[in-house]
Amino acid sequence: VITFEEIQTLDAEDPLRAKRAEFCLPANTIYLDGNSLGPLPIKAKERISTVIDEQWGKDLIQSWNKNHWIDLPIITGDKIAPLIGAATGQVICCDSISINLFKLLASALTLNRERKVILSPADNFPTDLYMVQGLAKLVGNDRCHLKSAAPHQLLDMLDETVAGERYDIEKITQLAHTKGVLVIWDLAHSAGAFPLELDNHKVDFAVGCGYKYLNGGPGAPAFLYVAERHHSRIHQPLSGWMGHKSPFGFNPEYAAAPGIRKFLSGTPNILSLTALDAALDVFDGVDMRQVEAKSHALSSLFLELISQSKYLTPLECISPATCEARGSQLAFSHEDAYAISQALIDRQVVVDFRAPNIIRFGFTPLYLRYEDIWSAVNIFEKIIRQKLYQEPQYQIRNKVT
Amino acid sequence: VITFEEIQTLDAEDPLRAKRAEFCLPANTIYLDGNSLGPLPIKAKERISTVIDEQWGKDLIQSWNKNHWIDLPIITGDKIAPLIGAATGQVICCDSISINLFKLLASALTLNRERKVILSPADNFPTDLYMVQGLAKLVGNDRCHLKSAAPHQLLDMLDETVAGERYDIEKITQLAHTKGVLVIWDLAHSAGAFPLELDNHKVDFAVGCGYKYLNGGPGAPAFLYVAERHHSRIHQPLSGWMGHKSPFGFNPEYAAAPGIRKFLSGTPNILSLTALDAALDVFDGVDMRQVEAKSHALSSLFLELISQSKYLTPLECISPATCEARGSQLAFSHEDAYAISQALIDRQVVVDFRAPNIIRFGFTPLYLRYEDIWSAVNIFEKIIRQKLYQEPQYQIRNKVT
Repeated sequence: VITFEEIQTLDAEDPLRAKRAEFCLPANTIYLDGNSLGPLPIKAKERISTVIDEQWGKDLIQSWNKNHWIDLPIITGDKIAPLIGAATGQVICCDSISINLFKLLASALTLNRERKVILSPADNFPTDLYMVQGLAKLVGNDRCHLKSAAPHQLLDMLDETVAGERYDIEKITQLAHTKGVLVIWDLAHSAGAFPLELDNHKVDFAVGCGYKYLNGGPGAPAFLYVAERHHSRIHQPLSGWMGHKSPFGFNPEYAAAPGIRKFLSGTPNILSLTALDAALDVFDGVDMRQVEAKSHALSSLFLELISQSKYLTPLECISPATCEARGSQLAFSHEDAYAISQALIDRQVVVDFRAPNIIRFGFTPLYLRYEDIWSAVNIFEKIIRQKLYQEPQYQIRNKVT
Repeated sequence: VITFEEIQTLDAEDPLRAKRAEFCLPANTIYLDGNSLGPLPIKAKERISTVIDEQWGKDLIQSWNKNHWIDLPIITGDKIAPLIGAATGQVICCDSISINLFKLLASALTLNRERKVILSPADNFPTDLYMVQGLAKLVGNDRCHLKSAAPHQLLDMLDETVAGERYDIEKITQLAHTKGVLVIWDLAHSAGAFPLELDNHKVDFAVGCGYKYLNGGPGAPAFLYVAERHHSRIHQPLSGWMGHKSPFGFNPEYAAAPGIRKFLSGTPNILSLTALDAALDVFDGVDMRQVEAKSHALSSLFLELISQSKYLTPLECISPATCEARGSQLAFSHEDAYAISQALIDRQVVVDFRAPNIIRFGFTPLYLRYEDIWSAVNIFEKIIRQKLYQEPQYQIRNKVT
């Protein structure tokens, strides 16, 4: 049986313990939803004040040069690069994952002109599937179509008709390349959560999220990665003026900027990009292997504490049993998942409900303590033991959850 | 000859004079570049504090419901609607002009399947041309291609091969419709600058800018308008999860939301959208006809004061001579335009330089006074009269201007 003293020792010995102080966290709240929206870093709050009061408020239009707004998509991209194992000049921050994925899907089609199939795991995050469907509808099914399959079947389906694909990393990228298949990785739930080695694993393309593990704020700009070896041969169709080699030349013909900048479209969103750029400073001095190790330790502790409670043991954990396979989250299915998640949130344990019957607990090592896991399990147990989730106020669903 | 006393009377009698106090303006600066980046509204500054400290900082993920983040693209769109003469439910705020234009160009092609030509004025803002070029390259020239022509030739070129087109408003839309042509208007330099009547003029589609006359902050989200009669028949290809009819149903098949919401792609950018939403409150109680009238009065005064100076009279104004034709700006060409614009900016008259030889003065009525025009012309005259722009520090060009 684990004691609270042991928990305190874990916190005292945690090499990441000082990072928590770099965030504004709501009082008396255990935030287990950093995988949906990372909390506010103090540096982001400070930089937003500066960009509003000094840059927009006083320097105004001159900030594009004076305060480097024009280069911010590249500057922020280069800050993300080391977190995903990429050399500089291959990552740019702009738009949303959906839009960036469209750029990369279309790019992959132009690189592999004889290939028409986009292969995806059937349980991929839906926007990834939708963007392929939108592209296929636009260019015609004879030029692009989506095949999806259960994750375990994907490897068997990689063949010479497939243009692009998404799932696992080193192994799949390598296998895909042996069949001439290009791979696009969606890193929404991995960038900032554990170490990645895109360059070493010869990844072709990737997209990722600014507002989850990178803590860039609600709807923060996304990022995209394109391996340097593909830069010169690629055309992306959302070819706006900021991706032009001379945006202020006002030439009527599009001519792509060299390098990763050609993946820009419209004017970069400076307020949101500034928040993300500042948020990334939290990773200064952080070894991603420590983040991964603590994430595993937090979720393992959660499972161990659950197993010590006769009330919680019957709950069905649907995440993989090994740390390595499950990333930074644990999901439990329960017919009253919605009511339980509301009862947890009411007691300031913020979790994520996913329809129809899943409660998701996220373990984000930069600001969570081992004692938070201890407290969260205690509250969880009380809700189940006393059947608090059966109170009537938890039976009504909100429109969006 | 106009006297300073007359100028003061104009300010005292200005029905919009109280609006200036709703902006944070840098001290001792005459800002004639609101057509590039609108200044900071006090309400935007306040709302950004709230969204950072209270919504992101404390309510965190619950803000999507509690603080209406999920509906912000629609809420903000409906605030823009009356400024452009649109009933609610037809305007949505998201992404950039470039991205939104791509959605509309592709939509126009699906509505007019036998039409392949996108007609545009050759001097259109380049990103509009680039997005057509990108779309054409993606779907093939046999399905979409760009024709451009001098503005005065456009009307003659409207024929049965043309799918979409952009320029003037009531007359061109009407003429286009007689040939079965759909029209997309780029309102970047008109929304918030003068009255528009999109519904009355039976406009099909429009895009517009959040960071110019709407003062939404650097790189603010853009907006798009789709006439209600087209909603049900349109498919837009950037079909991300936020445009799905049930974004949190996680269905693997895309099914568009009804109405304007289907034009959303990825997660909306809440910080930037909040700034724009708050900035729009400046238009409360403003009659757009007053804005237009004052804009004309400001630019006419500028020209009249120029004509009173023997040093400034030789300058070549390349904007149309009548107020009605020129919108909210005056452009002057001069071989030393870059140096003159830098000399003006150094003396806190903020103007816009456009390569190779144009100085652009913008007249934005919500925060400019007639006395600002008086002072700007005095400083302009001094720079020309004393040839201050020939000083060496103005001869070096910045990378981006």
